[in-house]
Amino acid sequence: MARLMDERIWTAGLVVIGDEILSGRTQDRNVAQLATWLNAQGIRLGEVRVVADRQEAIVEAVDALRTRYDYCFTTGGIGPTHDDISVDAIAVALGVDVVIHPEARAILESYYASRGGLTDMRLRMARVPRGAELISNRMSGAPGIRIGNVFMLAGVPHIAAGMLDALTGQLEGGKPLLARTIGCWVAESEIAELLATVERSREGVTIGSYPFFREGRTGANFVIRSTSQQDIDACVGELTAGLEAQGREVTDGGI
Amino acid sequence: MARLMDERIWTAGLVVIGDEILSGRTQDRNVAQLATWLNAQGIRLGEVRVVADRQEAIVEAVDALRTRYDYCFTTGGIGPTHDDISVDAIAVALGVDVVIHPEARAILESYYASRGGLTDMRLRMARVPRGAELISNRMSGAPGIRIGNVFMLAGVPHIAAGMLDALTGQLEGGKPLLARTIGCWVAESEIAELLATVERSREGVTIGSYPFFREGRTGANFVIRSTSQQDIDACVGELTAGLEAQGREVTDGGI
Repeated sequence: MARLMDERIWTAGLVVIGDEILSGRTQDRNVAQLATWLNAQGIRLGEVRVVADRQEAIVEAVDALRTRYDYCFTTGGIGPTHDDISVDAIAVALGVDVVIHPEARAILESYYASRGGLTDMRLRMARVPRGAELISNRMSGAPGIRIGNVFMLAGVPHIAAGMLDALTGQLEGGKPLLARTIGCWVAESEIAELLATVERSREGVTIGSYPFFREGRTGANFVIRSTSQQDIDACVGELTAGLEAQGREVTDGGI
Repeated sequence: MARLMDERIWTAGLVVIGDEILSGRTQDRNVAQLATWLNAQGIRLGEVRVVADRQEAIVEAVDALRTRYDYCFTTGGIGPTHDDISVDAIAVALGVDVVIHPEARAILESYYASRGGLTDMRLRMARVPRGAELISNRMSGAPGIRIGNVFMLAGVPHIAAGMLDALTGQLEGGKPLLARTIGCWVAESEIAELLATVERSREGVTIGSYPFFREGRTGANFVIRSTSQQDIDACVGELTAGLEAQGREVTDGGI
């Protein structure tokens, strides 16, 4: 089933900025969170780079991904401390100055009015690359930042989540990638050929095979993805028929 | 305190291969796992790229990281199914053929002797880029693969962990990066200047600031990292004195 030639696929890249991820101290949650959110917007996450809190590393990664994908997201490095250098690095990547955003300053003034006032260090969180807009942050004072196709989010996952809420429905996307999962108590090596045959028979459909070992038995879940529910259902039908012809039981929704 | 000029820092890059991470279906565990293991080997994780199950994406990422870092690790895509294309992609990246490794074949023959025999699809897991050595896998049959400075591990985290065990102590590294954490009930914006001053005063020491909001209060943990325990302890002393001079209580080990 040929994919329509004019079906535009929207894509995004993500740059995770933070020594704490590369050191193993912090388990990243933003990749899965952003990926899931993007799917609902009809945008596919094409690539992620995790880089250190070093300007040249951030500049290189942001430059690579903002030119390659429709959207480039970043997480981390927008707080008030010395290791928060994302704004400066992205300004360098885009070739613009860093300025104080008046609305961000007002937000921080109001937020810190009852919290000891807006100090110089706190004012750092109002700095943006020139030309940027704000992404509202209902969790804490400091806003996220949008400039061109670059979206800078907080590193703390629940704050990043609030910023994504603010962006929901704001970005142009295509058809969401749909998915359906089936599971079977089978070693994936026993049915690898069947999977490959079924996938090849339908353009625009991919089948992921995810083996596991549970309760002393080997099994696998198969995730069938496409923008067409009809294609997915047809593919699930073929795969199920193939597995059942081998005398295997198939669990819809996965095991 | 100047770092010795001849102190060699060993580095690694990681390519996480898998649509399931980019779709948000699977929460990655291998970044934190590898980072922690590398620290113990005296090797620093410098960069991570998460790429799709597409040959050109894998080739590009592996080529970039294997030339930039001392070691390049990959996770995922070495199973028996059609979406397992890491061996082919890395052979392309290195400009070598793919061959059946006789020892891998023997391992799989023995492993599958009581599990239905070695089928063609299972034999796929004995394919390696020409010139590769095996990394033993005590968890399941299929071995990991080492070729040059590229180390190909399984995507399933507990299998990757077994392969890392097999590599423990085998890779040349430098001094491990040590870390000490202190915590304080303070908004990081209030002490950002102190942190920056203390960090600047000691070369080779970095201070990461990790804010949190718990029990209705704002706090932060500060992670002080260096290859020198003496430098770390001196830095912790300065930081603690600075915080206590502001009337704040410091918790050793973090909050």
